[in-house]
Amino acid sequence: MSAKNPPKTPIYEGKAKKLFEGPEPGTLIQHFKDDATAFNAKKKGTIQGKGIINNKISEFLMSRLNDMGVPTHFIRSLNMREQLVRAVEIIPLEIIVRNYAAGSFAERFGAFEGESLGSPLMEFCLKDDRLGDPFIAEDHIYAFGIAQPEEIDEVRHYALRVNDILSGLFYGHGIRLIDLKLEFGRYYEGEGELIVLADEISPDTCRLWDVTTNDKLDKDRFRRDLGGTEEAYREVARRLGVLPSMNVVETHAFDAAPAKKAAKGKAAKPTAKAAPAKAKAKSKTKPKKK
Amino acid sequence: MSAKNPPKTPIYEGKAKKLFEGPEPGTLIQHFKDDATAFNAKKKGTIQGKGIINNKISEFLMSRLNDMGVPTHFIRSLNMREQLVRAVEIIPLEIIVRNYAAGSFAERFGAFEGESLGSPLMEFCLKDDRLGDPFIAEDHIYAFGIAQPEEIDEVRHYALRVNDILSGLFYGHGIRLIDLKLEFGRYYEGEGELIVLADEISPDTCRLWDVTTNDKLDKDRFRRDLGGTEEAYREVARRLGVLPSMNVVETHAFDAAPAKKAAKGKAAKPTAKAAPAKAKAKSKTKPKKK
Repeated sequence: MSAKNPPKTPIYEGKAKKLFEGPEPGTLIQHFKDDATAFNAKKKGTIQGKGIINNKISEFLMSRLNDMGVPTHFIRSLNMREQLVRAVEIIPLEIIVRNYAAGSFAERFGAFEGESLGSPLMEFCLKDDRLGDPFIAEDHIYAFGIAQPEEIDEVRHYALRVNDILSGLFYGHGIRLIDLKLEFGRYYEGEGELIVLADEISPDTCRLWDVTTNDKLDKDRFRRDLGGTEEAYREVARRLGVLPSMNVVETHAFDAAPAKKAAKGKAAKPTAKAAPAKAKAKSKTKPKKK
Repeated sequence: MSAKNPPKTPIYEGKAKKLFEGPEPGTLIQHFKDDATAFNAKKKGTIQGKGIINNKISEFLMSRLNDMGVPTHFIRSLNMREQLVRAVEIIPLEIIVRNYAAGSFAERFGAFEGESLGSPLMEFCLKDDRLGDPFIAEDHIYAFGIAQPEEIDEVRHYALRVNDILSGLFYGHGIRLIDLKLEFGRYYEGEGELIVLADEISPDTCRLWDVTTNDKLDKDRFRRDLGGTEEAYREVARRLGVLPSMNVVETHAFDAAPAKKAAKGKAAKPTAKAAPAKAKAKSKTKPKKK
């Protein structure tokens, strides 16, 4: 921890974020770490500066969504790694919206990575690390008492809007939104309950491919050891116009313990790099329309 | 093949059944084999006399369902191994209705085998051996163009009725219906389309536990090498009052190639046997109400 930020005790620590008590009742401070995990934390590492980049990207995207009438937990930016958010009761579901086949979906259904799904396809996973976040159906949500049908209707409505808005926004910056993972929470205000988008939106939670080269600009670079992960995250922030100065990213990466010193020297832009041969050959082909 | 049944060429051969052209247009002959497979055909074997037993059980249960207004493909019994059914266009889904946690469900959700689910829980799997019949959600059914929402509404309606009727019927014979797998098809009549129950209902497709001892009377005995599989299948037929004479079962088992001669000598009734120690200890406990 830097001298400017005296140690606080998080009320919750996840794989990529910490939550601290907020300055006002009903608020929390969401702190973004550089820690990266994949495959249900079987793979662990650090992406230097990721916390700062993701904080900035998420803040920017959540603000756009708020502007468009999608309620989110985001209140305001606090500093490079922290944002003020509403304290919500997280619905323990990972909502995945897929526009193109990729990752576990491509494996499960024998699809090739980048194959268009025609229209967005929504999947629910139970947010439970112990069980490996298993894929579930709506039937399970009600059978397990996770949420009410009216809540899931709202979640579906907002998840589709988020996907549509962000697909458009990313495309405007030369990025194809392949899929994304969302989390929602219940925000209690007076006697009312509001479903709001929570968690974060970043290259940790979205698959983002360059529109022309299909280069991956997201956590798959870390998951699949493709290299250039830090550069890819920075490239997304740069395109969205929210890249903090390099100086800030470097000096604020105080809790980073770079796993790969070798990667530091690489400065090539992801868009200019060919995907390594060990990535599926299909991932280089341009997504086809059905 | 026996001399009485001259070889015919099946128009379809599955893992446990063959289909031949029927004597009238729009009909098929469904022939039940003794072949048994599990874990997506990674495990293969033979359950002596299974074809005859399952033919008789399925015939009996489908008739009861027809009587109760659930449309099925079953027309009439032909012989010990064969029944006449309507030719339907199978909807490539496996519909699983679960009353108690067991098998893959218990694993996925960390539940114990026999834990009550409170009310029936429906799951859909894509019927595709190449992909290992993956679990899917309703969203996938429409995204992949497998069926229309109105069809799935009917499938859900009938699947719940089948589960309710059979739960009651089996319970009347001292058997708890833990879960069952159903398949439905489209039967075209004139310009109309009717959703009908197809495939079979048997200890191959249901999990059946003795109500008092929790002994398994189904394919789990084969899947988990518990022994006494043939006896368990016969016990179900015996309780339902459809057990053919032992003589018939033995002599008609012409395509059987018993994998385990040792099992032949065992004559103990499944209900009187304690489950082997390698079965999960939990499976011996009586299903608990939530």
